[in-house]
Amino acid sequence: MKNLLVAQSGGPTSAINATLAGVIQASMASSQIDRTLGAVNAIEGIHGENFIDFDKTIKNAMDIELLAHTPSSALGTCRIKIKGEEECKKLIDIFKKHEIAYFVYIGGNDSMDTVYQLSEYCKKYNIEGITVVGAPKTIDNDLTGTDHCPGFASAAKYIATTLQEIERDVRAYTLPSVVIVEIMGRDAGWLTASAVLAKGNGSRGPKLIYPCELPFSVDNFLKDVKSAVETDNAVIVAISEGIKDDKGVYISESVQSGQVDAFGHSANISGAGQVLAALVKEKLGIKVRSIELSLLQRCAAHIASKVDIVESRNLGICAALNALAGKTGMMSAIFRKPGNGYATEFGVFPTSDVVNKVKSLPREYINSAGNNITKECYDYLKPLIYGEETGFFNEGLPVHITDLVNGYESLL
Amino acid sequence: MKNLLVAQSGGPTSAINATLAGVIQASMASSQIDRTLGAVNAIEGIHGENFIDFDKTIKNAMDIELLAHTPSSALGTCRIKIKGEEECKKLIDIFKKHEIAYFVYIGGNDSMDTVYQLSEYCKKYNIEGITVVGAPKTIDNDLTGTDHCPGFASAAKYIATTLQEIERDVRAYTLPSVVIVEIMGRDAGWLTASAVLAKGNGSRGPKLIYPCELPFSVDNFLKDVKSAVETDNAVIVAISEGIKDDKGVYISESVQSGQVDAFGHSANISGAGQVLAALVKEKLGIKVRSIELSLLQRCAAHIASKVDIVESRNLGICAALNALAGKTGMMSAIFRKPGNGYATEFGVFPTSDVVNKVKSLPREYINSAGNNITKECYDYLKPLIYGEETGFFNEGLPVHITDLVNGYESLL
Repeated sequence: MKNLLVAQSGGPTSAINATLAGVIQASMASSQIDRTLGAVNAIEGIHGENFIDFDKTIKNAMDIELLAHTPSSALGTCRIKIKGEEECKKLIDIFKKHEIAYFVYIGGNDSMDTVYQLSEYCKKYNIEGITVVGAPKTIDNDLTGTDHCPGFASAAKYIATTLQEIERDVRAYTLPSVVIVEIMGRDAGWLTASAVLAKGNGSRGPKLIYPCELPFSVDNFLKDVKSAVETDNAVIVAISEGIKDDKGVYISESVQSGQVDAFGHSANISGAGQVLAALVKEKLGIKVRSIELSLLQRCAAHIASKVDIVESRNLGICAALNALAGKTGMMSAIFRKPGNGYATEFGVFPTSDVVNKVKSLPREYINSAGNNITKECYDYLKPLIYGEETGFFNEGLPVHITDLVNGYESLL
Repeated sequence: MKNLLVAQSGGPTSAINATLAGVIQASMASSQIDRTLGAVNAIEGIHGENFIDFDKTIKNAMDIELLAHTPSSALGTCRIKIKGEEECKKLIDIFKKHEIAYFVYIGGNDSMDTVYQLSEYCKKYNIEGITVVGAPKTIDNDLTGTDHCPGFASAAKYIATTLQEIERDVRAYTLPSVVIVEIMGRDAGWLTASAVLAKGNGSRGPKLIYPCELPFSVDNFLKDVKSAVETDNAVIVAISEGIKDDKGVYISESVQSGQVDAFGHSANISGAGQVLAALVKEKLGIKVRSIELSLLQRCAAHIASKVDIVESRNLGICAALNALAGKTGMMSAIFRKPGNGYATEFGVFPTSDVVNKVKSLPREYINSAGNNITKECYDYLKPLIYGEETGFFNEGLPVHITDLVNGYESLL
């Protein structure tokens, strides 16, 4: 018997279930695979041998569609990072026990590290008949080897749409005001950069954008805002949650460092956007509001990018086919072809070149003043958010696979 | 010459432009009205005689559709409240100068007060030929005389959709966690109550819901959360931004009252959700996150309720027809018929009975423990969010009327 096991790891996205749907679809269609299994909560589920059998769980083809439009990780996730040969051996022994010939791991950097370690372990000890492959995922878009990462584009589309709606809101008033929007990404500014997409369709977009790649100067920020308010009465500012000062300290920490509450505890509960808004109010006396997009940006499947969902699914199909082809240690990836227009091909990239690397926003994607995004970056981002993938609705609300593990209501 | 003037006031919503579209459509279709004018920034624009002529501004019928799907107030808004006969006289004189026979004011309580004062003024001084009418609007849903208010249902749909997506996100993890979602409405808990709608389609919805109508006890809240976490590892809590303690002090203020920053200033920059999250972390030691839906909930036209957009537009058409019929001092309104099913009719309600009144969430819509919403309330809310009205998209982003006043890109 040759079974395929798939698992999802890391933080949820709007597209990771589309990749899972792709893996399941390809696996169930293949005559070389007997059973298609899912590990509940990733490594935790493998350790506990907590598997679900998709041949029994998925009721019909439309439910695979439903899965592809459900945000977050339907199999559940975990943050466990495996390390060393002993831990590899434990997992491989469980694979052998359950006749798992193919393991597909969907996730970010840590998950690709797991794929790498398991495949190296099998090579080193001549373990045959087990192929371990990866499929990328992260809203942060910071994995090397793939032009962009599943989940990123849907988050970017949510951010751009939301910024345009905020722009409509604040432009209705005559009183000058500033809105600071805090965007996810502690170590990579790709999502913050995607705020530039809000320029489309007649909207002006954020006047100022600060990704986390450059040191953030509070003084320069206040100067930038003051100058922006002079020519526009509704200034939108996008900042990365990960902006740091020139000593590498998060701005939220450096500004709040002296604050204590009534009990003498640290009052350090506000994010970067909030502390900057307080500074704008105090130093410039302008009406200001901070908005943190928080979890909403990574699970807003109701405004997912069609490009993202379609591509993410295809990366899942590719990963299953890579497993069948014995491409152990490889991650499925998207390559963008040079030239005008959006041309891509799907291929593989070795996880050895993915692990412990971070693809930061290139310096040339940030303007020279460090407070906005260049046309080159805009052109890179723009095709990724094309097309609407709003999923299924019933009685006014989206329909999701609410509990893939214990049972869900079928779409049909 | 008999002209119609329309204006929008108060905070933006996803549906107020649908009402404006209804007024424009009916006015332009009427042979009794010569010119259809809009006041830029409401009372401010009337004072400055800053009017736009829709016969020249609106290029084609599809642009009226585009307007109906654009969030916020396309004419701009203001927060000016008129008071006294002298201010009424100023406005009426401007109406006379511009041959305005019909004035339609779209807004909330303050705007209906303006409609009331202007109509009373005209009656008292026997000013003939000027009819002043209102059309309701508020995401807070707290106007009397209408079963519900335009803009509320779209905000409710956004809240329910977002809560379901948050539920998918947090349920992917095994570590117990609490998410506190802070919802708009300082004086009325209708929007917070609409969090109960997230129960649909297999989702469990928030375990705890605290509208602002009842005094909020931090001790009871901590007990409720502790108990909830015992039976569920992902607890979502919805709170109103307006929750107050038993002395009527906002929770955000009462909890932060002793906090000062490094410079001795008040550190009072966090909302209710954030201070409660800090308490949960400190007192219960549970992983917790607070999310403030902020402006996003009132301008998320990309997930507007079809019922809301259709009804809001109809209320605009009604308002224009009420003006033509001489129903001065009246607000267009929705009446819900008793019995099963969602049956409504559109009519008028005197603004004299709207002003200075607030329709709070009834006690019977809140459970006896004061920490959730009843089935009766759920049944009232449920039909309001039916149907998706996602508007128009181009190159992956919504298309809005970005600048109705100075020019916009036509849809066609």
